[in-house]
Amino acid sequence: MSESPKAVVLLSGGMDSCVVTAIARETHCLALLHASYGQRTAGRERHSFEAIADFYGVSQRLAVRLDHFAQIGGSALTDETLAVPEDEPGTPVSAEGIPITYVPFRNAHFLSVAVSWAEVIGASAIFIGAVAEDSSGYPDCRAEYYRMFEELVRVGTRPETHIRIVTPVIGMRKSEIVRRGIDLGAPLHMTWSCYQSEDAACGVCDSCRLRLRAFEEAGEPDPIPYKARIAR
Amino acid sequence: MSESPKAVVLLSGGMDSCVVTAIARETHCLALLHASYGQRTAGRERHSFEAIADFYGVSQRLAVRLDHFAQIGGSALTDETLAVPEDEPGTPVSAEGIPITYVPFRNAHFLSVAVSWAEVIGASAIFIGAVAEDSSGYPDCRAEYYRMFEELVRVGTRPETHIRIVTPVIGMRKSEIVRRGIDLGAPLHMTWSCYQSEDAACGVCDSCRLRLRAFEEAGEPDPIPYKARIAR
Repeated sequence: MSESPKAVVLLSGGMDSCVVTAIARETHCLALLHASYGQRTAGRERHSFEAIADFYGVSQRLAVRLDHFAQIGGSALTDETLAVPEDEPGTPVSAEGIPITYVPFRNAHFLSVAVSWAEVIGASAIFIGAVAEDSSGYPDCRAEYYRMFEELVRVGTRPETHIRIVTPVIGMRKSEIVRRGIDLGAPLHMTWSCYQSEDAACGVCDSCRLRLRAFEEAGEPDPIPYKARIAR
Repeated sequence: MSESPKAVVLLSGGMDSCVVTAIARETHCLALLHASYGQRTAGRERHSFEAIADFYGVSQRLAVRLDHFAQIGGSALTDETLAVPEDEPGTPVSAEGIPITYVPFRNAHFLSVAVSWAEVIGASAIFIGAVAEDSSGYPDCRAEYYRMFEELVRVGTRPETHIRIVTPVIGMRKSEIVRRGIDLGAPLHMTWSCYQSEDAACGVCDSCRLRLRAFEEAGEPDPIPYKARIAR
């Protein structure tokens, strides 16, 4: 049996976190964490999470529901009264260019769950598929943010707890992530990225457009079904 | 009407956060946040939260349930298989002196909810009743931890968002907190601290002992009912 150290991987079911799972398993024994937060496509993402976990034969899984995001609101992803925009990726909707799909301080909630679980099960690393470049412009997707979170974990946990926050794709272009995933044999056909629908991807929301552009730049076909594919 | 800036106050229903609420309202318009996390006395604490909010006439309230702590386990507060200790406060149960009632990385979850809500409602401060000295020895109750969290918020939210993390009682002894609460007319009779029971406080758990000692040192009677009071 492997003597690899244990890592918690935040696996949303999307492309980036699927590739991060493939990267993490090269060096670590995996514990997979899924957090739903009242987003429109939560059920479809959970399905992808379980399929990818099955694909890699990972039995240590935790799926949590952070229902308070729907109470808090403030994002098109969790607030029924706000529409998910169907235009160019990264279109600014606030003066400073933060998209309306930004969920306030979301990744801190995910990381906090990951740290609590990691401390209990004895994991020494947390992998998260944040992407700073070529991405949606969310403030909590930058390398500086994760370095600071790692410091916070050092100060805020038991003295004997040592947990690294690992962001292996943070500096990659989306097309590089596609290529890395293909190289590692990651099950990209099982992933889900669409913010709007759960049967076939809409092809027009920010997340679909970023994904389609990534596959196009990588020169690879996207294996999931789409309702529409807008020419660039 | 007041033009005071808005603050989110983390109000558990315990003594420290009740006094912090009294302090915050001197300078801020209040929004009160309660987070239950599967702790044994969640219902009783929620009752205290609502009573204190009514006492201060605060209508902006958010009560969230962080049920994932029960899934994660690892603490006597949220894990039915672990007993709440009935001995001297701060008794070490790990080599480094962290009590078994420590909930791994708990305050990061609370603060994350507070930050998300603060960003949506436009609050400029978050008040939390953490106590470093004279306390239970939890790693996430130290001033350094909150300074670092404030930095994390600066990096991880919208550029126009500015949220201070305020810990007005962090350096106080528990007896000073009692005195300050009495001076401010805080409704200490409505608060709940016991980790074990919901009708009358047990008087023997860590939290009850810290509270009883605080009132004793302050030379004031504790106004809530107890099943037992152990002489020091």
